[in-house]
Amino acid sequence: MSALLGIDYGATHTKMLLVDGAHGDGPVVARESVRTGKLEELAESVRTFTAGRAVARFGITVAGTLDERSGVVGRSANMPWLDGVSPARTLTDLVGIPGVAVQDGVATAAAEAALGAGRGVEDVFVIALGTGIAGAHIVAGEVRAGAHGGAGEVGHIVIGGTHRCSCGQIGCLETLIGGAQLGRRWAELSPATGDPAATARDVVLAAESGNQGAEDALAQASDALARALLQISALLDPGVIVIGGGVARSPRWTVVPAFEKARRDATFHRLPDMRLAELGVWAGAHGAVLSAAEAPHQGSPSGLAAATCGSPRPAGG
Amino acid sequence: MSALLGIDYGATHTKMLLVDGAHGDGPVVARESVRTGKLEELAESVRTFTAGRAVARFGITVAGTLDERSGVVGRSANMPWLDGVSPARTLTDLVGIPGVAVQDGVATAAAEAALGAGRGVEDVFVIALGTGIAGAHIVAGEVRAGAHGGAGEVGHIVIGGTHRCSCGQIGCLETLIGGAQLGRRWAELSPATGDPAATARDVVLAAESGNQGAEDALAQASDALARALLQISALLDPGVIVIGGGVARSPRWTVVPAFEKARRDATFHRLPDMRLAELGVWAGAHGAVLSAAEAPHQGSPSGLAAATCGSPRPAGG
Repeated sequence: MSALLGIDYGATHTKMLLVDGAHGDGPVVARESVRTGKLEELAESVRTFTAGRAVARFGITVAGTLDERSGVVGRSANMPWLDGVSPARTLTDLVGIPGVAVQDGVATAAAEAALGAGRGVEDVFVIALGTGIAGAHIVAGEVRAGAHGGAGEVGHIVIGGTHRCSCGQIGCLETLIGGAQLGRRWAELSPATGDPAATARDVVLAAESGNQGAEDALAQASDALARALLQISALLDPGVIVIGGGVARSPRWTVVPAFEKARRDATFHRLPDMRLAELGVWAGAHGAVLSAAEAPHQGSPSGLAAATCGSPRPAGG
Repeated sequence: MSALLGIDYGATHTKMLLVDGAHGDGPVVARESVRTGKLEELAESVRTFTAGRAVARFGITVAGTLDERSGVVGRSANMPWLDGVSPARTLTDLVGIPGVAVQDGVATAAAEAALGAGRGVEDVFVIALGTGIAGAHIVAGEVRAGAHGGAGEVGHIVIGGTHRCSCGQIGCLETLIGGAQLGRRWAELSPATGDPAATARDVVLAAESGNQGAEDALAQASDALARALLQISALLDPGVIVIGGGVARSPRWTVVPAFEKARRDATFHRLPDMRLAELGVWAGAHGAVLSAAEAPHQGSPSGLAAATCGSPRPAGG
C-alpha cells in the first residue's frame, strides 16, 4: 500500500509524517522530527525516513510567501535559501517523488479543519495565535483565499488601542495578543516588573505567580480576541471557530476567557462553537499530507492553495 | 416566449418587473409600481400587470425575516400581515403561477452583483446603506449565507464611538452611518442647529448649505465606513465592493470620501475595486427575477434559494 509524505519544513525543525492511503486521513505509519537543513540535507533525511516504503507523493510547507501558480517561494524570513526557489520541484529532482508546496499557515488550518477540532464540520474558521496571527476560513475542505489571495487576515482587523502594528495600521488585534507584543504590553502596564522582550509563555508564568501587570496584559489580550471573534461571526458566520498556536497553549489565560467574553457580549450574533485546536505541533505536517492528497495541478486555484511540482511518476524505490 | 416576474413587495410601494427569457438577465418587457396592498390586492395587480403574457415563474421579496426552508415569513415589522405566512405559496394559489420568496436585502445584493456594478466579477461584496445596513458576499452567483444564515452583518461590526446600537452592542458601524442615526449624530455635534429626527437627505442638505455639524456628522460617517471597508478587505478580500442604498445617494458626502480614506489608510490590504451601485430602486425587483430564474426547490441551500439567508437581521433596512 502506498503512502503520502508530509514535510513541515520549519526554520529550526523539520517534521516528517508518513500516512497510509491516498486521502491523507489514513493511519500514521511513521513520523520523525529532524533539525532543519537546506534542501540537499532535507532530501537525505527524506531518503532515510522513507527507505523501503512506496511514497506516492509529498507535500512540503513553506514558512514564507508562496506563489500558488509556480510553487516558487517569494520570501522566507528565516529560511533565506528558499527565496526564489521551488522547494517541491527541487526536492522532486533530488528524491524522485512528485510533490506540492503549501504555505505553512494554510496547511495548519486545513489540517485542524479536516482532521483536528473542526473535523466533521463543513464550515470552520481557524485562528493561529503565534508570533503573528494567521486565519483561514475553510468551507467544504476548501480554503477561502479571497479574490487576491488575501483573505483571513484576522490579526489585522482593527480592535482598538494606540499601538502601531507591524502592518502600519494602529490598533490591530496583533498589537494586543501577538506573541511578540504581549511582553511589550506587560512592560507598559507594569513598568517596574514587566519585560518587553518576554515571550507569551513568560507573561503567563508571571501572571500565574501573581504579577498584576502580566494579568492585565493577558486580560487585555483576551478581550481583544473576544471582539475579533464577534467580528468574524458578524461577517462570516462560520460553523466552528478553532484556535491554536503558541499563545493558545495556556488557554485559561487567553482563549477560554475570550470565548466566555464573546458569549457574554454577543447580541444578534449566531455564535459558532468555539474550540481549541487539537493537532498541536504536528498540524503543519498533517496539512502537508492533505495537500499531497489533493494533488492539484499547477496553477489550479485549489482549496489548499498548494502548488504542484514535478509530474506524477511511479513511486520511487 | 415566456417571461419571469419579479415582485419587490415593499412596505409602501410594490414594484413589478417582467423580464424575457429563462435566466433573469433578458430585456425588461414591462415594469410598474403600485401602492402596496395585502396579498389579495397584490394578486389582482399581478393579474392586471401580466394579462395576456406567459409568465413561467415569479420571485417575491420579503422585507423581514424569512425561513429558507419553508418560505414562511418570521416577522415583517412594516407588513404584519405577512407574519407566519408563505407569500409565494399564497400568491401561487391566487394567480396560478409558481414562485419563490427571497429576503429583500439578498435580492438587491444579488441583482447588483449579477446585473449592476458587480456584473462580470466573480467575487462581489454588496453593502446597502439604508435605515439599517445590509451586506452580502456573492461569489460565483451564490450568496455566502454563513453556517447559520447570519453572514454579511457589516452594519454590526464594531468601529468605535460610544453609541448603543439597536442590536445591543456599542460602536457598531450602523450607529455612525445608519440612515436613522445620522440626524442624531448631527444633533450631538451641533446641538443648536442639528435635528435628531433628520433623514440622511436632510443632513446632506444641511451640509451643502454650510452647516458645520452636519458636515462633521457626515465626515464621521464616511470615516467609519472607510474602516469597515478595510475590515471587509482584511477578512474576505472580495474582488469588488459595491455600495448602494439611500445614504449612498449623495456619494460625495459619504461613499466617495470613504473610498478615498480606505485607499489612503490601507497598508497590507489588497483593496478591491470600490464602486457605486447602479440599479437604484429597481434592484430588488431584478433580484426577485433572478431568484425566479434560479427556480430552486424551497428548502434548497443554494445561493438565492427558496428564500435566502432568512436570518433575523438586527436592524435591516
